[in-house]
Amino acid sequence: MKRDINYTMLTDFYELTMGNGYFQTGLRDRVCYFDVFFRNVPDGGGFAIAAGLEQVIDYIQHLHFDQEDIEYLRGKGCFSPEFLDYLRNFRFTGDIWAVPEGTPIFPREPILTVRAPAIQAQFVETYILLALNHQSLIATKSNRIVRAAGGRPVSEFGSRRAQGSDGAVLGARASYIAGASGTACAMADELYGTPATGTMAHSWVQMFPDEYTAFKTYCQVYPKAATLLVDTYNVLHSGVPNAIRVFQELGITTGGIRIDSGDLTYLSKQARMMLDNAGLPGIKIVASNSLDEYIIRDLLTQGARIDAFGVGERLITSKSEPVFGGVYKLAAIEEADGSVTPKIKISENAAKVTLPHFKKVYRLFENATGKAMADYICVYDEEPDFTQPLELFDPEATWKRKTVTDFTARPLLVPVFLDGELVYQLPGIRQSRAYCQREVDSLWDEVKRFEYPHNYYVDLSPKLWDVRAALLAARH
Amino acid sequence: MKRDINYTMLTDFYELTMGNGYFQTGLRDRVCYFDVFFRNVPDGGGFAIAAGLEQVIDYIQHLHFDQEDIEYLRGKGCFSPEFLDYLRNFRFTGDIWAVPEGTPIFPREPILTVRAPAIQAQFVETYILLALNHQSLIATKSNRIVRAAGGRPVSEFGSRRAQGSDGAVLGARASYIAGASGTACAMADELYGTPATGTMAHSWVQMFPDEYTAFKTYCQVYPKAATLLVDTYNVLHSGVPNAIRVFQELGITTGGIRIDSGDLTYLSKQARMMLDNAGLPGIKIVASNSLDEYIIRDLLTQGARIDAFGVGERLITSKSEPVFGGVYKLAAIEEADGSVTPKIKISENAAKVTLPHFKKVYRLFENATGKAMADYICVYDEEPDFTQPLELFDPEATWKRKTVTDFTARPLLVPVFLDGELVYQLPGIRQSRAYCQREVDSLWDEVKRFEYPHNYYVDLSPKLWDVRAALLAARH
Repeated sequence: MKRDINYTMLTDFYELTMGNGYFQTGLRDRVCYFDVFFRNVPDGGGFAIAAGLEQVIDYIQHLHFDQEDIEYLRGKGCFSPEFLDYLRNFRFTGDIWAVPEGTPIFPREPILTVRAPAIQAQFVETYILLALNHQSLIATKSNRIVRAAGGRPVSEFGSRRAQGSDGAVLGARASYIAGASGTACAMADELYGTPATGTMAHSWVQMFPDEYTAFKTYCQVYPKAATLLVDTYNVLHSGVPNAIRVFQELGITTGGIRIDSGDLTYLSKQARMMLDNAGLPGIKIVASNSLDEYIIRDLLTQGARIDAFGVGERLITSKSEPVFGGVYKLAAIEEADGSVTPKIKISENAAKVTLPHFKKVYRLFENATGKAMADYICVYDEEPDFTQPLELFDPEATWKRKTVTDFTARPLLVPVFLDGELVYQLPGIRQSRAYCQREVDSLWDEVKRFEYPHNYYVDLSPKLWDVRAALLAARH
Repeated sequence: MKRDINYTMLTDFYELTMGNGYFQTGLRDRVCYFDVFFRNVPDGGGFAIAAGLEQVIDYIQHLHFDQEDIEYLRGKGCFSPEFLDYLRNFRFTGDIWAVPEGTPIFPREPILTVRAPAIQAQFVETYILLALNHQSLIATKSNRIVRAAGGRPVSEFGSRRAQGSDGAVLGARASYIAGASGTACAMADELYGTPATGTMAHSWVQMFPDEYTAFKTYCQVYPKAATLLVDTYNVLHSGVPNAIRVFQELGITTGGIRIDSGDLTYLSKQARMMLDNAGLPGIKIVASNSLDEYIIRDLLTQGARIDAFGVGERLITSKSEPVFGGVYKLAAIEEADGSVTPKIKISENAAKVTLPHFKKVYRLFENATGKAMADYICVYDEEPDFTQPLELFDPEATWKRKTVTDFTARPLLVPVFLDGELVYQLPGIRQSRAYCQREVDSLWDEVKRFEYPHNYYVDLSPKLWDVRAALLAARH
């Protein structure tokens, strides 16, 4: 299966018109710093999960315009011949720092920083945002659903309702990193190692003269791993009895049934009783049908006897909130002498004012519990002494202060590209999944509530706060 | 730019396990009929717009398993060696009928029908649904937004918030077919001919010492097509005055300004006045910022002076309803003698009962007005005499009857593949866009309301109604 796409042209046209402008006006080599950050956690949650970095890396490594692209651009009639020539050898030569995939992330903090000459740094905006926004959205939703399932496996089932092929394949990837047990999507498994499994469709049952024959035939083909879909006709009067009959006749004691419609609490309790009474305690019950974290939580609260969940459209599109609002904003410009001039984007809306400057982010873990206490953002050249007590303050209400001691600080962003060279060793997907679980475990339960969670602290160093205040005071 | 992806493996794993099952149990060559249809129009609208057929065609033509795919499947340990051998030469040899892209479509009627041997017909389910669901979703949303804009151009701006790369590129394609004037996405333009345009980002303005210099520099590079983003600092006190100064200094009389925040009604009225007073009536006002059909309708109702709209995340993800619920259901099975046995999927939920049989769909246009009056579904071998008055009846409330006369009937589905051969000439994208507009124009305004539209009639022939009633009566 080939998968060799060059996404260079997957860019907003204005990145190119601005690039041509920077080129013609002497700004092409002006080094800039851009941050990716987001403002609101989807679904009102307490944190998001970062994902999509592998696709960003892939994109940066393949970045180039081929002849066809150049000719297309020439045909637009708005680019100078010199700029089009320049694009022939266009490569990314800058630096990128990012949080590893699976990291819990919070509003306003940088999750990826680009340092590069202006044309390059501007150009990569669209695809970087696309990749991080999409997969962070799905990872965040998947993690909520997985947490609702309380340890029961959640399989991603949504390819047919995904928004395009990458919506399906990379959505399956992101959902696995964030804790899903697998996917129905074969391509995601083949490409990314997200375990694919499958059961049967209603059409299988309809293809045979009756449900019993359909089940028996399937179990004869797959005696060790049959999950029978029991709701084609009637779950309790036809599906479950036929499944039991087939399991008993063939001596099958492990396997499952899947219920895809009706009241899942009632049906799963009844089905469990019927299976147990038939001496089939090893047959698992899988539930599907428009599930999400809220419905799963309610089903389990009501005592539904469900062993595993298949979740489709509401996961693969993050249906309740299908947009992750990551933005890409200029944070600083480098002067000829190497000094860094911070830049801010003002807005009438205070929440939309950006954090200026080239920055570092630390996550502070309490030594006694291992729990994450706060994220701490400072200017790139600060070297905070974390062996001393640290006073944190709310950047919006600076009189809210708290001194923390006995903690360990870990840099949140890691170098990914330096001078255009990849310096980051991508972890395997299972490793990213395990990392995600550990990191989510390091958050207090209060931050993990689905609604009205505790606001995790994302605080600024005094120096960074001063830089921001000075730029706000000097606003145009 | 290469774009050569084989999406064969973009399939739910169960299509493969069922395929292996059909193969081993003698059903592999049993000819089946599957219909794609949907049950609800997104956003409570009166109709949807079909899109995605080009990608279905591409998929079917490229359908094959390569060595790597076969080895991946072998590694799963659940497929017979004979089945894996069979997959080496797996091709689609069946028939497909579908509605052309841009066609207004209604719940419950087939929009694509597959006739093929069981393994093939089953296998293509996932990708066909994915392609049609995604693009029909975006086309439907785009058409609503375009209609709200009342003839003003709507450009698709959402790549950075799309759900993956095809979400962006094919989303731009679908939105163009449904009436958008273009896109910001360069790749969609290069690949599919959806005109790409672009303005500038806030970062362009920030890169210069001041807004005036930023605008002037941009206009010097693009004297004929500059749209200046005027909200980096303050729209009315800085952005518009600086834009006017630059336009006047450079003698620019055509071009635009873009307002991306704040109250778009107020700001556009004020900006229009300032531009007009400065003798710049030719400068257009473009508005963006979380727009959709409802906001655009309200802005225009309030007299906003906006000439064109840029619409991002709410279009490219169909944010208010991000799932198009197309399904793929078995409708019939062919017997050895060539006769066709209808199949039905029963459900406790009456709305989920399928329409059985291999079917034809006609759209009936009133001759006097050219308006679409009803869709009429009949069994494949019926040849209705449309020169005679036709009695229509509501399939759920059969006492509701109406006789129509003086109309023209047009078959809605066209042959796309016959015996595995492509027999359909894909129209160019501009042609599909013009067709879409014509077909939407053929609907009564009552069907086009955003909320509580009139229910367009989708009626059954007496013969088809009888087939369905008989199958329901004989249910398991």
